[in-house]
Amino acid sequence: MLNTHLIENYIGAGAIKGSELAESMEKDALSFGAKREFGVVKDITADNESDIKTIKTLNEIYKSKVVIISTGTSNRKLGAKGEQKFAGNGVSYCALCDGAFYEGEEIVVVGGGDSAVEEGLYLTQFADKVTLIHRRDTLKAQQVLQDRFMNHPKTEVIYNSNILSINGGDEIEAITIFNNKTSDTCELKTSGVFVYIGLIPNTKEFINLEITNEEGFIITDDLMQTKLPGVYAVGDVRNTKLRQISTAVADGAIAGNQAFKYIQENF
Amino acid sequence: MLNTHLIENYIGAGAIKGSELAESMEKDALSFGAKREFGVVKDITADNESDIKTIKTLNEIYKSKVVIISTGTSNRKLGAKGEQKFAGNGVSYCALCDGAFYEGEEIVVVGGGDSAVEEGLYLTQFADKVTLIHRRDTLKAQQVLQDRFMNHPKTEVIYNSNILSINGGDEIEAITIFNNKTSDTCELKTSGVFVYIGLIPNTKEFINLEITNEEGFIITDDLMQTKLPGVYAVGDVRNTKLRQISTAVADGAIAGNQAFKYIQENF
Repeated sequence: MLNTHLIENYIGAGAIKGSELAESMEKDALSFGAKREFGVVKDITADNESDIKTIKTLNEIYKSKVVIISTGTSNRKLGAKGEQKFAGNGVSYCALCDGAFYEGEEIVVVGGGDSAVEEGLYLTQFADKVTLIHRRDTLKAQQVLQDRFMNHPKTEVIYNSNILSINGGDEIEAITIFNNKTSDTCELKTSGVFVYIGLIPNTKEFINLEITNEEGFIITDDLMQTKLPGVYAVGDVRNTKLRQISTAVADGAIAGNQAFKYIQENF
Repeated sequence: MLNTHLIENYIGAGAIKGSELAESMEKDALSFGAKREFGVVKDITADNESDIKTIKTLNEIYKSKVVIISTGTSNRKLGAKGEQKFAGNGVSYCALCDGAFYEGEEIVVVGGGDSAVEEGLYLTQFADKVTLIHRRDTLKAQQVLQDRFMNHPKTEVIYNSNILSINGGDEIEAITIFNNKTSDTCELKTSGVFVYIGLIPNTKEFINLEITNEEGFIITDDLMQTKLPGVYAVGDVRNTKLRQISTAVADGAIAGNQAFKYIQENF
């Protein structure tokens, strides 16, 4: 949320700044007695006999009856100049979140996989033109998605190209592209850059629990339970099919309710 | 939402009146171009060849590429005097929604099934005393739930009893109970009545589609798809495990996203 300038798809909240919505949610959680502690989790272990979990952070050790993991994902970054400056304000990692702000604009999508092509198609309903930029000479996305993208009147693909820099003052005006076949450099006008070169689940500290899939996402059932009793995962970090604020909130409601039942049954 | 006086579990919205949250959600939906029509749906049919659905209401016929059913459920009513007067203000059909308002109070739960006992247990974290009232001489709930309820220090069960009336001025003060074995009538002080005598899915118009389970709830997969292509169901009306505002909102987000893909692929 903090990385999204304006959020319009958490229904009931209107158009709200990501930071404001985050603050409201924190306030609501604290008002019910939630306590907030900061720390970098290093390790979680479960003592089977007592069923108490131990969570080690850099500086503290916590004991708990249940653990709900909600560490989210990180977006793989382009590494282009200007990427950080315009992050959340022209550079986006979420078409569903930010697409609607580009009504009538010309934008680019970076990537070649299913996500890049799919989200590129999604963006055609808002933007006047969607240019896909991919570093290789073929896309990796499913053929049916590729065909659909190629056949769409608003789209274009630029192959063999990397983005060197994202340029502009207060807003993005253009990007500088490097063609890795011809070594040519050119400038392309654009008002938005959607980056879809991969999502990295923040789970490296939980790998030893063996609750993640091969991509590192945590596997849960539809009650948010991992295969470890009393350990739940919610939101972007779990192996889910749609990553939005509202789906993460629902995950949290379900996990909270399950955690309550779990404690009631086991302690 | 309209039946809930105050909503505190739609995170980010703070403590908000049900009617206000409903209004905000409607406003947000309309701002994106949703159109609102009122009508009592009588029938939905799908023309397989063109894949266009026809929705007949009492007065209109609509054609659509997709249909998202979100007709919710109705709570089976007690039929007691005062039930309607205190609905949403002392009489509740949702412990998760309203339980926290009864911190330190004495309340009753009506019913004998899993929901009644489970929600009764849930309410013990807030209320000082939870009295379960059931019309029969045994409960229908799973034994493990019954045991847990009986062994809880804050609970009591009154068997063979029906509620005749819910009494009070601005707030509930007591209920009048009729014992159907002894024919005795007595009054019990209480500040809240939670009714768990069954949920009725609002699906009788869709029975012919054969997308409901034996209880009448609509069966969907985790992408909200029914077995009919282009027909989705979201919220309380579907066969789901937790019925909250946030889970219904997430269902809606998922169905909306799927509907978009479905139209893109099929039209």
